[in-house]
Amino acid sequence: MTERNIRVEPIDRFAVEDQEVEIVERKGLGHPDSICDGIAESVSQALAQTYLDRVGKVLHYNTDETQLVAGSAAPAFGGGEVIEPIYLLIVGRATKHYVDADGTEYHIPTDTVALRAARDYLAEYFPELEFGTDVVVDVKLGEGSGDLQEVFSEEGATVPMANDTSFGVGHAPLTETERIVLEAEKRLNGPYATDNPAVGQDIKIMGKREGDDIEITVAAAIVDSYVEGMEDYIDEVDGVREFVTDVATEITDRTVDVHVNTADDYDEGAIYLTTTGTSAEQGDDGSVGRGNRANGLITPNRSMSMEATSGKNPVNHIGKIYNLLSTEIAESVVSEVDGIRDLRIRLLSQIGRPIDEPHVADAHVVTADGIDVADIEDDVSAIVDRELADVTDITRRVIDGELTTF
Amino acid sequence: MTERNIRVEPIDRFAVEDQEVEIVERKGLGHPDSICDGIAESVSQALAQTYLDRVGKVLHYNTDETQLVAGSAAPAFGGGEVIEPIYLLIVGRATKHYVDADGTEYHIPTDTVALRAARDYLAEYFPELEFGTDVVVDVKLGEGSGDLQEVFSEEGATVPMANDTSFGVGHAPLTETERIVLEAEKRLNGPYATDNPAVGQDIKIMGKREGDDIEITVAAAIVDSYVEGMEDYIDEVDGVREFVTDVATEITDRTVDVHVNTADDYDEGAIYLTTTGTSAEQGDDGSVGRGNRANGLITPNRSMSMEATSGKNPVNHIGKIYNLLSTEIAESVVSEVDGIRDLRIRLLSQIGRPIDEPHVADAHVVTADGIDVADIEDDVSAIVDRELADVTDITRRVIDGELTTF
Amino acid sequence: MTERNIRVEPIDRFAVEDQEVEIVERKGLGHPDSICDGIAESVSQALAQTYLDRVGKVLHYNTDETQLVAGSAAPAFGGGEVIEPIYLLIVGRATKHYVDADGTEYHIPTDTVALRAARDYLAEYFPELEFGTDVVVDVKLGEGSGDLQEVFSEEGATVPMANDTSFGVGHAPLTETERIVLEAEKRLNGPYATDNPAVGQDIKIMGKREGDDIEITVAAAIVDSYVEGMEDYIDEVDGVREFVTDVATEITDRTVDVHVNTADDYDEGAIYLTTTGTSAEQGDDGSVGRGNRANGLITPNRSMSMEATSGKNPVNHIGKIYNLLSTEIAESVVSEVDGIRDLRIRLLSQIGRPIDEPHVADAHVVTADGIDVADIEDDVSAIVDRELADVTDITRRVIDGELTTF
Amino acid sequence: MTERNIRVEPIDRFAVEDQEVEIVERKGLGHPDSICDGIAESVSQALAQTYLDRVGKVLHYNTDETQLVAGSAAPAFGGGEVIEPIYLLIVGRATKHYVDADGTEYHIPTDTVALRAARDYLAEYFPELEFGTDVVVDVKLGEGSGDLQEVFSEEGATVPMANDTSFGVGHAPLTETERIVLEAEKRLNGPYATDNPAVGQDIKIMGKREGDDIEITVAAAIVDSYVEGMEDYIDEVDGVREFVTDVATEITDRTVDVHVNTADDYDEGAIYLTTTGTSAEQGDDGSVGRGNRANGLITPNRSMSMEATSGKNPVNHIGKIYNLLSTEIAESVVSEVDGIRDLRIRLLSQIGRPIDEPHVADAHVVTADGIDVADIEDDVSAIVDRELADVTDITRRVIDGELTTF
Repeated sequence: MTERNIRVEPIDRFAVEDQEVEIVERKGLGHPDSICDGIAESVSQALAQTYLDRVGKVLHYNTDETQLVAGSAAPAFGGGEVIEPIYLLIVGRATKHYVDADGTEYHIPTDTVALRAARDYLAEYFPELEFGTDVVVDVKLGEGSGDLQEVFSEEGATVPMANDTSFGVGHAPLTETERIVLEAEKRLNGPYATDNPAVGQDIKIMGKREGDDIEITVAAAIVDSYVEGMEDYIDEVDGVREFVTDVATEITDRTVDVHVNTADDYDEGAIYLTTTGTSAEQGDDGSVGRGNRANGLITPNRSMSMEATSGKNPVNHIGKIYNLLSTEIAESVVSEVDGIRDLRIRLLSQIGRPIDEPHVADAHVVTADGIDVADIEDDVSAIVDRELADVTDITRRVIDGELTTF
Repeated sequence: MTERNIRVEPIDRFAVEDQEVEIVERKGLGHPDSICDGIAESVSQALAQTYLDRVGKVLHYNTDETQLVAGSAAPAFGGGEVIEPIYLLIVGRATKHYVDADGTEYHIPTDTVALRAARDYLAEYFPELEFGTDVVVDVKLGEGSGDLQEVFSEEGATVPMANDTSFGVGHAPLTETERIVLEAEKRLNGPYATDNPAVGQDIKIMGKREGDDIEITVAAAIVDSYVEGMEDYIDEVDGVREFVTDVATEITDRTVDVHVNTADDYDEGAIYLTTTGTSAEQGDDGSVGRGNRANGLITPNRSMSMEATSGKNPVNHIGKIYNLLSTEIAESVVSEVDGIRDLRIRLLSQIGRPIDEPHVADAHVVTADGIDVADIEDDVSAIVDRELADVTDITRRVIDGELTTF
Repeated sequence: MTERNIRVEPIDRFAVEDQEVEIVERKGLGHPDSICDGIAESVSQALAQTYLDRVGKVLHYNTDETQLVAGSAAPAFGGGEVIEPIYLLIVGRATKHYVDADGTEYHIPTDTVALRAARDYLAEYFPELEFGTDVVVDVKLGEGSGDLQEVFSEEGATVPMANDTSFGVGHAPLTETERIVLEAEKRLNGPYATDNPAVGQDIKIMGKREGDDIEITVAAAIVDSYVEGMEDYIDEVDGVREFVTDVATEITDRTVDVHVNTADDYDEGAIYLTTTGTSAEQGDDGSVGRGNRANGLITPNRSMSMEATSGKNPVNHIGKIYNLLSTEIAESVVSEVDGIRDLRIRLLSQIGRPIDEPHVADAHVVTADGIDVADIEDDVSAIVDRELADVTDITRRVIDGELTTF
Repeated sequence: MTERNIRVEPIDRFAVEDQEVEIVERKGLGHPDSICDGIAESVSQALAQTYLDRVGKVLHYNTDETQLVAGSAAPAFGGGEVIEPIYLLIVGRATKHYVDADGTEYHIPTDTVALRAARDYLAEYFPELEFGTDVVVDVKLGEGSGDLQEVFSEEGATVPMANDTSFGVGHAPLTETERIVLEAEKRLNGPYATDNPAVGQDIKIMGKREGDDIEITVAAAIVDSYVEGMEDYIDEVDGVREFVTDVATEITDRTVDVHVNTADDYDEGAIYLTTTGTSAEQGDDGSVGRGNRANGLITPNRSMSMEATSGKNPVNHIGKIYNLLSTEIAESVVSEVDGIRDLRIRLLSQIGRPIDEPHVADAHVVTADGIDVADIEDDVSAIVDRELADVTDITRRVIDGELTTF
């Protein structure tokens, strides 16, 4: 155990990979909850960067509360239309007025910064969704509770204090099922999307493993303007199934069964057709922190933090930092130390103490056969220590958009 | 007097041109009230056209209630910024669901139609104002009171019934002072703007004539990104003064005195500098129907209707139609009949009667010296009768954007 | 002519009482536009009083922009219900933060003051309309354009400067038709309402006089919970007609014809039945300054100011002060000077000059037979002068709610 | 294993009570997230009851998305004030128009039902928070995705189909730490509040157990109008500490250390003083599903579902039903079967199958010393089976408000 109160212990359960039943879910980029996560995080990055550019340090803000109210739409083969726009309210706190030590006064255009960030984010990822007409974006950023915290300057150096008693948890390595769910969605919304514009951004993937049988259920919004009829639609659905099956078999040797848009009823014409590529256009509301955890997944087999990671200030909001950091640590440990079958890193903060000195930092491991925790304890501990020492690096990478939060 | 209950009578006052004191005002294109008028009217045109395109007739709607809440901005020589966006709420009634005689069902995307109309209007006239970030536009269009009125079909023909007891009034010819005020704003926001992007759209012109002395007071928002310093600013103000003086002397032989941005205090640095070209960016709210009357002017020397003309349904909203029609009639009469020094046309509707049969249509004239009302009565009456018969033409021209409403 | 630039002249028209056709309208207390006027003015009074109580002077504010978006309702004999609430947005500017000469800092709760004022106003005048559920009231009060004007202190004394070039106009005496329209609505919404709760607040009265025939058309919302069936409804309508007829015959000897709810069709069951007593519950939007002028009437036969009087700061907003003051002056003159058949007072401000020194103050009179303007000129001028000298009294009475603005 | 696919198995970890480190948190009634949960659930109950009363069955709705935007306040000893109101937006889907089999048409006033539910909920639990002025409540309830599901009639009987693939998890018995955290908050906001109005509703309790040392950290908002000065404040804080200590020692024999309002700095005057009893008045935003899980706690040591339970339709929204039901089952099993030290019930639905036939229902137990899973397997299984068969009872109890959801 180091000064940093790091413990390395055996975990009191099987590796998730070895449990009998495993459930994993990912709400893709275009799921209404993920849209909110994505915008909240974009707004956060834009505010942090604006503060750095103008004041030289990140001022107090927190924008982890975007609310999306679904619209209504009339999708149709060949191209339908949005009837009522989606309404998206960016909510949070941000410092609007600041006087530095020299008496220089700054008025920060937090509201327009937030709106531009939302506009740019939507433009980058949602080609079918027109900003301002298909989706109305409004903003309510109040001032915070008065204690402007000047904690993160360009010169950097000082480690901020924890703003709350909060808890972060990270896991590594991902199980096969987790990797399939994560990879499939990322590739569908990545390279696959480029060649297949008919596949919308709202892709939800559920993975269920019972023993060695993995069942992957995909709900993928199809964009109406790219499909002329039912035949096209079925082709798109088939395409997704084949693609996901390929991703899965690349990752696992277990039996994999992939289902796409299972609620479809072709005879009734009840299919998952959209105009904009997201169910937010018709009846599905969303908000921040209701979907994926910081590692991109919902994993009931694992400990999860309830904290919304997206949108929070990455300088001193411990709920955000510790979730991202614990995940980073877990991944580092697993990539550097052999013989770990499952690792859970938990960080518990203590209000008022520097964030690189958590109240508790525990690493719970399931070792591979033949390996004892004692064999690897020192290595693990050293890595945890090193990464904690480097905690402000997380802040920088979040602001630069290098770390995903959902 | 015809079947249409047309009266032609002497007016019981001097021609406005001959009154001792005359006051005229015009809120230019970029005044917050005019922005609302312009958007309300654009939304109205877009809805009417959408109904015609889809259903073949204009369904019930009324969108004469846009509300603008000012933002805040930090203008600066060389280019400042918007701090808090302008908020603009499009309010009104519109038919969203319609079943025609054949049982065909229509869902009209009234909200997205309205938002697109607002976006296009702002894009066309406000180059410095970015839709969705400098100005957030939201929409609340409810259904009306249930009686969907199918009154104006492509085949046309039937004249609708008046929906209200309402009053419209029009005047001709314009006085010199009126023409100066109207022309100066239109040209400043027209040809002059093209060459002088530093002059914003928010131009308010007040004309006051006492006897033969005309004083023109212009408040013109200057756009900060086009002026590097106070010298540039002063050049722009001088340019406006010269231009308006030229317009005035083209129109009148009276003494004209032109003042521009009289509230400026160069020593204090208190000048009319804006980032977007409108005072809506900083503290000036606006709404429909609070500014110019249908002829583009506020004229306390003349009878005015309180009706907001912009945004109303041009098919059967008698408050709109009669204000536009009475102005048209007045202009037609004056251009066709000699010897009229001042003419006021008033149309009073009666609920439930066809709109081409007003309860009262009276023409009050001030004749030129040597002309008697009796000399021209028949001619005037015939023109009023002809124009009333052609009332549905007003509707068509409004939908096509040929008639201005503010 | 005094130092104050007061002119007394004959008006160049007949007295309105003697014109052939006269039109008068009043939108009663519960008309959507009047609801907005009433709330805007209540908010204004509450803010002014709050500033006086806390800071000792009225700070800069302007709240003349309330927007009402109609709800939807399902009225029914015996009691129906509101389906979608009315939405009411209080818009304007108000000083939220103030530092006085001693360095004492004040945070003024402008938003909650405004909401409470709206709540109290609705509670007082709209017994059937439940605040917060039948009507949602929100508020957007921004800061103004920065120049906090400290103009009206308890110690008073100094006369503020005009904030704009603006125009006010007042008339006296009212014609018979005007008095009938005004009195009928005030009594219906006053003593009559107490005994007849079935008559709602949304009463619109139109008066039309042609020669000596006066036609009064009343649209009166009937409250459903007080009428059990069509017979009750017809009784209520008959009651209103009789009451208005009595008011009219008390005021005039001319022929009077009173119509109530003329659009009703008993066979179709199409009647003016409401749940809350106002058409705002179903499809009628409203906003400030779109209805009655400062004297409570819309009078196309008379000069009218376009300024919204309700909601404006009564300390230095010249548009408000001059409309109220000119009406007060006209009434004073007529009550003190005999032989005036019609009087119009116009006040034109000049930016930056004290408001008791208007640029122009003209009194245009139509004298009674046998009286010459010269006979009364001095008396009129003296009264105008006296009232102008006393201009700050208007401010005090507005804040105390003694003057009505719509 | 029964027809219902019920499995009873040993859990692969220690009982939470026996783990080395345990963390538990509860956001009390007045925490901004809990306010949203509470209102969302109240709205849900009110809608369900309205549908039952009018249509005889619960129609499609989902209201699990309330968003709270914090206000600003100026608390002060003896009584401060709210400066800017809290803004609360009720978001969701609800059936507004319904035609039953007989052709009878219903218009459901979903918006006013929701607003009234929010008003009543706030009035019941938040005595210091004035509806409509301290908190502005607005509502955006859209129609759903069109498939009106008529699933729960008064006659009942039919078990609805799962609307989604979703997962619920419940635990019993609670650990001592969990019971302390839960009980302390419930009693503080229950009996204690009655006698101590100075203690506001916003009470957040964090419990941390390391071995046999329990640390309870309470953040309790104190209401300013009940404390005249710092001494009073300290008395209130002391009172809370004593009360919570008593609750804790009643529940456990372990060492307990209670801290209250640890961030206070009496010298700086930085204390947790509020005007309304909740931090929502100043800077803390909130939304549904971000706080407590269905059992009232946040328990990182246990599996948790990400589903927001509050606000969801209790008839067929499987995410809600299974979270509540699994908790109920766990509690029933533990109360009826001896020898269970820790029990986790997981229910996994399958879209389109009746909700009483989950895809997986597994009971993972940690048995007491000397007890084998095999000894109790049949009893546990029978209870799970019985409770599943009775699933619609959950729906009824939720509608009646008998089950808490947060």
